[in-house]
Amino acid sequence: MKTKDKLMQTKTLGELAAHVGGTVIGDASIQIKSASTLDKAGPGEITFLSNKKYVPQVKDTSAGAVIVAEAIDSRASLLVVEDPYYAFMQIVVLLHGHRQHPQTGVSPQASVAATAKLGAGCNVHPFAVVCENAVVGKNCQIYPGVFIGPNVSVGDNCIFYPNAVIYDGCVVGNRVIVQSSAAVGQDGFGFATHKGAHHKIPQIGRVILEDDVEIGSACAIERGTLDDTVIGKGSKIGDMVAIGHGTKIGAHCLLVPQVGVAGSVTMGHHCVLAGQVGVVGHIKIGNLVKIGAKAGVIGDVPDGATIVGTPAIDAGKARRAYSLIEYLPEMKKKIKEIQRRMDKTGNTDE
Amino acid sequence: MKTKDKLMQTKTLGELAAHVGGTVIGDASIQIKSASTLDKAGPGEITFLSNKKYVPQVKDTSAGAVIVAEAIDSRASLLVVEDPYYAFMQIVVLLHGHRQHPQTGVSPQASVAATAKLGAGCNVHPFAVVCENAVVGKNCQIYPGVFIGPNVSVGDNCIFYPNAVIYDGCVVGNRVIVQSSAAVGQDGFGFATHKGAHHKIPQIGRVILEDDVEIGSACAIERGTLDDTVIGKGSKIGDMVAIGHGTKIGAHCLLVPQVGVAGSVTMGHHCVLAGQVGVVGHIKIGNLVKIGAKAGVIGDVPDGATIVGTPAIDAGKARRAYSLIEYLPEMKKKIKEIQRRMDKTGNTDE
Amino acid sequence: MKTKDKLMQTKTLGELAAHVGGTVIGDASIQIKSASTLDKAGPGEITFLSNKKYVPQVKDTSAGAVIVAEAIDSRASLLVVEDPYYAFMQIVVLLHGHRQHPQTGVSPQASVAATAKLGAGCNVHPFAVVCENAVVGKNCQIYPGVFIGPNVSVGDNCIFYPNAVIYDGCVVGNRVIVQSSAAVGQDGFGFATHKGAHHKIPQIGRVILEDDVEIGSACAIERGTLDDTVIGKGSKIGDMVAIGHGTKIGAHCLLVPQVGVAGSVTMGHHCVLAGQVGVVGHIKIGNLVKIGAKAGVIGDVPDGATIVGTPAIDAGKARRAYSLIEYLPEMKKKIKEIQRRMDKTGNTDE
Repeated sequence: MKTKDKLMQTKTLGELAAHVGGTVIGDASIQIKSASTLDKAGPGEITFLSNKKYVPQVKDTSAGAVIVAEAIDSRASLLVVEDPYYAFMQIVVLLHGHRQHPQTGVSPQASVAATAKLGAGCNVHPFAVVCENAVVGKNCQIYPGVFIGPNVSVGDNCIFYPNAVIYDGCVVGNRVIVQSSAAVGQDGFGFATHKGAHHKIPQIGRVILEDDVEIGSACAIERGTLDDTVIGKGSKIGDMVAIGHGTKIGAHCLLVPQVGVAGSVTMGHHCVLAGQVGVVGHIKIGNLVKIGAKAGVIGDVPDGATIVGTPAIDAGKARRAYSLIEYLPEMKKKIKEIQRRMDKTGNTDE
Repeated sequence: MKTKDKLMQTKTLGELAAHVGGTVIGDASIQIKSASTLDKAGPGEITFLSNKKYVPQVKDTSAGAVIVAEAIDSRASLLVVEDPYYAFMQIVVLLHGHRQHPQTGVSPQASVAATAKLGAGCNVHPFAVVCENAVVGKNCQIYPGVFIGPNVSVGDNCIFYPNAVIYDGCVVGNRVIVQSSAAVGQDGFGFATHKGAHHKIPQIGRVILEDDVEIGSACAIERGTLDDTVIGKGSKIGDMVAIGHGTKIGAHCLLVPQVGVAGSVTMGHHCVLAGQVGVVGHIKIGNLVKIGAKAGVIGDVPDGATIVGTPAIDAGKARRAYSLIEYLPEMKKKIKEIQRRMDKTGNTDE
Repeated sequence: MKTKDKLMQTKTLGELAAHVGGTVIGDASIQIKSASTLDKAGPGEITFLSNKKYVPQVKDTSAGAVIVAEAIDSRASLLVVEDPYYAFMQIVVLLHGHRQHPQTGVSPQASVAATAKLGAGCNVHPFAVVCENAVVGKNCQIYPGVFIGPNVSVGDNCIFYPNAVIYDGCVVGNRVIVQSSAAVGQDGFGFATHKGAHHKIPQIGRVILEDDVEIGSACAIERGTLDDTVIGKGSKIGDMVAIGHGTKIGAHCLLVPQVGVAGSVTMGHHCVLAGQVGVVGHIKIGNLVKIGAKAGVIGDVPDGATIVGTPAIDAGKARRAYSLIEYLPEMKKKIKEIQRRMDKTGNTDE
């Protein structure tokens, strides 16, 4: 790891526009040396407008330039693009770059089994362990304290941050990132209860992390009991997410920190689960499903649904319904009043 | 660690029936080489029926054999037993076995204090640490990055997976399993707030893990402030479960991933807490209590209760009540209509 | 680490009273050797009364002495002080002390970069890593498996428990404690989604832990995308808390285990968030705010508010409202009855 400050390089606004395929309104020759937030950006810095509520701030910003989707009133020069947040990402990569991993090779303080295979260009840091028969592709970063278990298979260009643990036999694709202290492939929570005692069921499935997956710090991705647990291509899993045994997460999903998905769930592609969502086991969630923060999902969810609440229901319906809980005391009072009025006026139910 | 594939051995269905005390309907001579899921099992594989909704799948299964509780229509041979899930567990153990831990002894790359005692047959992997005056029993597996703190006591046949941390003075029974990066005995969240500052209270209690306990990855089991935190015999704790200081979990409980139990709780035996349940501190939960996913428990719970919701109430009541939240807008509208009708018909409350 | 038993020393009750500025009712000459809980304390032990519901227990306690706020009936001698819990903390520190960290220096089995700077009196344990250009102050404890990343800055008297990870460039103040396997400064969950794929945005902000902060086990404190994530002076963060990128937690806050705060939140000072609270991103929480367990906070919160529920509302209102959910079936039934009565009596709506 190496802080990005060293990489900072200056570009003109015009060069940035060319890089992202946008157009400049204002001075294309100004020098931009870094990206910053809308309220902190100064001259020489570029920022972006992602939400219309900040339009007034753009007007008076001290930033050198602002990335926008359409021309608006601003003291700063504008870089107009179709997708400002994506352009912003491209510019942060250009100006600052991703974290650098200097070439250090295999540390003599690491433990690499004689039967393990390491591709060219891998860094294995002190106190990392690569076990018997593990196969690691090219240019992987294996930070201190990482455990790559026996018979694990890892593709190219992966990064395992300090103390990440990949249990035996798991399969990791290319360009996968596993943050610190995450567990991939620990035993599923599977016990057969017999005469009051819980008997551990061997968990003989694996975890498969497909290409371009990222796993957050302190996650727990259980291996399957019989079948594999799968995190689909391009899916990003936030910190402290728990995935149960045998669950299949589709491609390009976003699971925000502290989500929990129980075992044997099948989830489609491009789903978004907000913070602290819980999903019960053995259900099917469609494609392009959005689940609001803290929702508790207890049944199948069709393609394209947006749901919130516990139990989770259609979001439009739920937002109105859950916001009415506050008025329950008032509703109760009104019902009582009505009954009193009816009783008084002889509106009796004989 | 070693993947189970190497252990696979073939048995006849008749041999499996003898092993679990069941009876065969169909061909007892067929060879079974592995266990699989109902939808994936093929010839030479055995699967099981745990839920009646899958009866139709059993009929057309390609599996060689299915474990069932009673005779049903199926292309496959049947193994009839009283408790199919328990028999399934026994058969998975027989055919695949639990994870193997090859005998490697104490690695010269481990750090074992001169005053620590290790029983016969222990494996201490590279970069594991066993501190001063720790006592570890026989045949324990201490994986890389594990920390066994000073004065810790560990029984026989325990497994500590990579980067698990047992803080100073804690007590671990026999056959205990601690998954990767779990914390056992870190300081309880105890502060005395005085004039706006929070002063740390030394946490002088311990954590005691009784025999046959399993602790999931990234769990946090706080040591007690004065008294010990205890996880009772045979209890299984899922990933990312937080247990507060001084809490006593009884025997044979199941705490599913992401459960949180605050401090000074007393819980009986054979309780089941589903995912993301939260329990406030200083309460008493009886024996054989079942708590539904995401429930928030704010008071004592009697023996045998089944509760759900936040605040958690009797499950039967709660399921109906919480499912009505969806209809609050409709209820509100009806109350309004009724009032309007009463006002119109002169049904006034003078 | 070293258990506190060795440090135990006996004091008279009079000496303890002098130490905390309190007065004795009873025998000031009795010897007190340790602190204990109200129900377990015996002769020679001191305990405290923090909650009036335990007054009857104080009467018949076997404890040698009880710390109280005012004189009450008790078999034990009393130590009367203004703030019993604070006095209790002071006495536990006096009798038992905080965890001791024997001076062991820099282990030859640790990995300290040639360019790293370590202050006087630091202990760096086996298999800990201090990377290039990291600067660590005086008397810090760096336990096994800890990772202090490149360019990290650490103040004096900090403690990093086993396997804690401080990512590159983060800033840690004085007297900071980081419990086992916590992540400080891992990448924020920031992706620009373009044509269905999620592109990682370099996270170039840092995490700043101010003086006297404590971070619990398995926490995940994300670094900022552009701006820093800050945990304010004296704030205490429980186990498994997730803090999103760019969030600023004010001074002297208490965030109890399993809390999640999304990114770009600004929180004032002296806030208390109970277990499993979730806070959405981009909102402002005032000073002295209290948030009840499991609450879901979806909007700005003014200074001094106490809120609970999902969505979180004023606590007084919420406790009544949420407790009525249980009565929804009854309310629904009553509305139906009323309608039936009205229809019957010709109270019709034309």
